[in-house]
Amino acid sequence: MKKPVALLFDVFGTCVDWRGSVAREVAAVAIAKGKRFDFFAFADAWRANYQPSMEVVRAGRRPYAPLDTLHRETLLTLLDKFELALSEPEIDDLNRAWHRLTPWPDTVEGLDRLKTRYLLSPLSNGNVRLLVDLARHAKLPWDAVLSTEVFKAYKPQPQTYLGACELFACAPGEVMMVAAHNNDLLAAQKLGLQTAFVSRPTEYGPHQKVDFAPEGEWTLVARDFVHLAESLGV
Amino acid sequence: MKKPVALLFDVFGTCVDWRGSVAREVAAVAIAKGKRFDFFAFADAWRANYQPSMEVVRAGRRPYAPLDTLHRETLLTLLDKFELALSEPEIDDLNRAWHRLTPWPDTVEGLDRLKTRYLLSPLSNGNVRLLVDLARHAKLPWDAVLSTEVFKAYKPQPQTYLGACELFACAPGEVMMVAAHNNDLLAAQKLGLQTAFVSRPTEYGPHQKVDFAPEGEWTLVARDFVHLAESLGV
Repeated sequence: MKKPVALLFDVFGTCVDWRGSVAREVAAVAIAKGKRFDFFAFADAWRANYQPSMEVVRAGRRPYAPLDTLHRETLLTLLDKFELALSEPEIDDLNRAWHRLTPWPDTVEGLDRLKTRYLLSPLSNGNVRLLVDLARHAKLPWDAVLSTEVFKAYKPQPQTYLGACELFACAPGEVMMVAAHNNDLLAAQKLGLQTAFVSRPTEYGPHQKVDFAPEGEWTLVARDFVHLAESLGV
Repeated sequence: MKKPVALLFDVFGTCVDWRGSVAREVAAVAIAKGKRFDFFAFADAWRANYQPSMEVVRAGRRPYAPLDTLHRETLLTLLDKFELALSEPEIDDLNRAWHRLTPWPDTVEGLDRLKTRYLLSPLSNGNVRLLVDLARHAKLPWDAVLSTEVFKAYKPQPQTYLGACELFACAPGEVMMVAAHNNDLLAAQKLGLQTAFVSRPTEYGPHQKVDFAPEGEWTLVARDFVHLAESLGV
């Protein structure tokens, strides 16, 4: 194995715990309004529409719209379903819960170590502003903030992986995609990128059904980001 | 004046001293080969072809090519003109002198202070990899690394300024362009961005002919980046 020059990271689930973070923000808002319901169910329902909402864009049935826009559309339906009445500024703020997600306990230490030798960037379906705010909030030490927004596409569309390699002036084989999701790695591998699987078995809470284990011939498999750093010699 | 949300920085000349840095790298390479010539003249000649080489792209006479490519083409003609024979790896390395430029003495302190309240990014004609390497080298604390490469265009083409605002999810009036070049600010101002002029009167050495003083109605005029931070309340 030849060491990569740059590492690209999936973010939601791989770097940060979206489920616990979103549930906490929903809980704070709901309780302030005198409402109680299953806050994790709200977070799960929000996430459940993630792939369907992007698929409309990927299939060309609507023009590219950034994830903040897709998230807000889903949020409006959930506020209705969960009977939570919010003002427009409150809706905007709750939508930005995705800009304030909590990293997994090993994320920042692992990234800090990896940064001593490798170029690091997210390659996330989150839009640039979301990722910029998240990097500040979670102290993620990125060298650049690449979002699929830059390519007006969504992973796993090939131009997102290849576009990121091009912006790093790297051949695909010089770049390693890091993700907790086998399908993300498969798409990257097909294009020639190196791959690292990091298991995040609690991402979806008790409802998790996939991605407990590697399901492909990945370049590396790591228990967490600190283990990934050790595996990459830093 | 309403405080901006994000600040975009021109880089070459505004944040870093390309002329002194490139002259030093050329000198080191030349002297190692037993050659002596006017190293600043080499740097000036390299930079002199900067606008003409981009203009071919802007005019649509060639497809977009990143600045590293344009720089390398110019470098080859200069090695010939200055009779400096280098190997391919030596040429590649000297071309990366533009990835290793020295910041002006006030740049990092000013940016560190500005970062406490504002989102910061370059908006440079340097390609992403150049800017990523430069950020590491010069310790520039960017939130994101926006390059005109992302838009396959070169400043002052309008889509570069507007595209950067869009990626920051900001209206143009929420973004301030910071540059030592009046023409860069004029292009940004026409599109509704706020503007800050920072004088860099030694950028072009003894040959500087323009940009000693502000030539437009800019939102702010600052002596240096620390003064800019003070003017913006941080």
